Amino acid sequence: MKISVLTLFPDIINEYTNHSIIKIIKNNNLANIEVLNIRDYSLDKHRKVDDTIYGGGPGLVMSIEPIVNCLKEIKKENSMVVLLTPTGKKYNQEMAKKFSKMEHLILICGHYEGIDERILNYIDLQLSIGDFVLTGGEAAALVVLDSVLRLLPGSINKDSLEVESFNDYLLDYPVYTKPEVFEGYAVPKVLLSGNHKEINEYRLRQREIKTKINRPDLYEKYLEKKGN
Amino acid sequence: MKISVLTLFPDIINEYTNHSIIKIIKNNNLANIEVLNIRDYSLDKHRKVDDTIYGGGPGLVMSIEPIVNCLKEIKKENSMVVLLTPTGKKYNQEMAKKFSKMEHLILICGHYEGIDERILNYIDLQLSIGDFVLTGGEAAALVVLDSVLRLLPGSINKDSLEVESFNDYLLDYPVYTKPEVFEGYAVPKVLLSGNHKEINEYRLRQREIKTKINRPDLYEKYLEKKGN
Repeated sequence: MKISVLTLFPDIINEYTNHSIIKIIKNNNLANIEVLNIRDYSLDKHRKVDDTIYGGGPGLVMSIEPIVNCLKEIKKENSMVVLLTPTGKKYNQEMAKKFSKMEHLILICGHYEGIDERILNYIDLQLSIGDFVLTGGEAAALVVLDSVLRLLPGSINKDSLEVESFNDYLLDYPVYTKPEVFEGYAVPKVLLSGNHKEINEYRLRQREIKTKINRPDLYEKYLEKKGN
Repeated sequence: MKISVLTLFPDIINEYTNHSIIKIIKNNNLANIEVLNIRDYSLDKHRKVDDTIYGGGPGLVMSIEPIVNCLKEIKKENSMVVLLTPTGKKYNQEMAKKFSKMEHLILICGHYEGIDERILNYIDLQLSIGDFVLTGGEAAALVVLDSVLRLLPGSINKDSLEVESFNDYLLDYPVYTKPEVFEGYAVPKVLLSGNHKEINEYRLRQREIKTKINRPDLYEKYLEKKGN
């Protein structure tokens, strides 16, 4: 798949893709990550990308023209154009899975007081990663980029994906590594037993307990699904 | 305030703090941002920071020792130690506001299959930015860092903070900038009227409509609050 990120701060996105699993995904050509500087699409001689707000108010608004110019150059028939904004639909793992099956995902990062509202005529989806406000869409774009790319075939061990949080509405089980005892805290004995049936039962129980305590809303959905 | 980020990928965090509003906050010493490489706190001669999972399973788990070594060096009486994990409590704007009043926030980024569960004995809060899985806590740390720092006095125009999304349970109003007409789409006439009373009424109505359509859950809370 291809992911294009439209931003005023390409270095933030580029730096993120130079590390860890995302770097491997990029280097192995499992995905094509394109980072575009919105400023490069401004027709203004000073490469201006924002201006004051109609009707008055603090701060600057991002102009629509440079963004639409960029979209016109990169958008294909199968592109999905996503605007990252706190007023959008809430992002979750299910959407990450859907996105990971798409051919081309375009992520637009707003900044300052936001983008001229008329941008809504040029996008497919307004997306929010949560009920908080950021200085711009860049951190949100990284969240979407990362959570989608790691789901691509060949990115991450398939077994890891099967037991992780939000599958079956359960949170992940606790993990432990050496040393066996650290400052008096010991690894649960069952994990040292070598009895895989017991270990699996223990881990499922832990997932249930953790979800019940930390996320009763998810636990209810889990019980519903289990009951059916 | 001071924010310390413990990560295996300090460059990601450092790059983010070199741009836009966060850069200004850093350069004006409105906040002290400290980025620490967990690897520097490994006592292993190869600076190892992870190992295989007790009880079996795919991937590697981050060892507890380097992280606790680092915490012991930087934690003060007033430090709040936060572990970023998809199994944690859901982050929101209210928490951002609380965090922005703290003296010292410590953000720990897990990676790979997560951190040895015994880390829970050394932290104050498990925090999740949403129901999705990331390759590591770095993007989540950026979200918290950004949303907290912008609330510090002197960071952002106070007027901007007052009307933004999630205040009073309403989403932000739409903004427009030049040109007045773009590809046939015009700026709403009321915003060109200069009548501030009408503009304010229009904007509040827009906030209500937007919230009602995009986030009926928030709209309900807004109505409740308004009714009281």
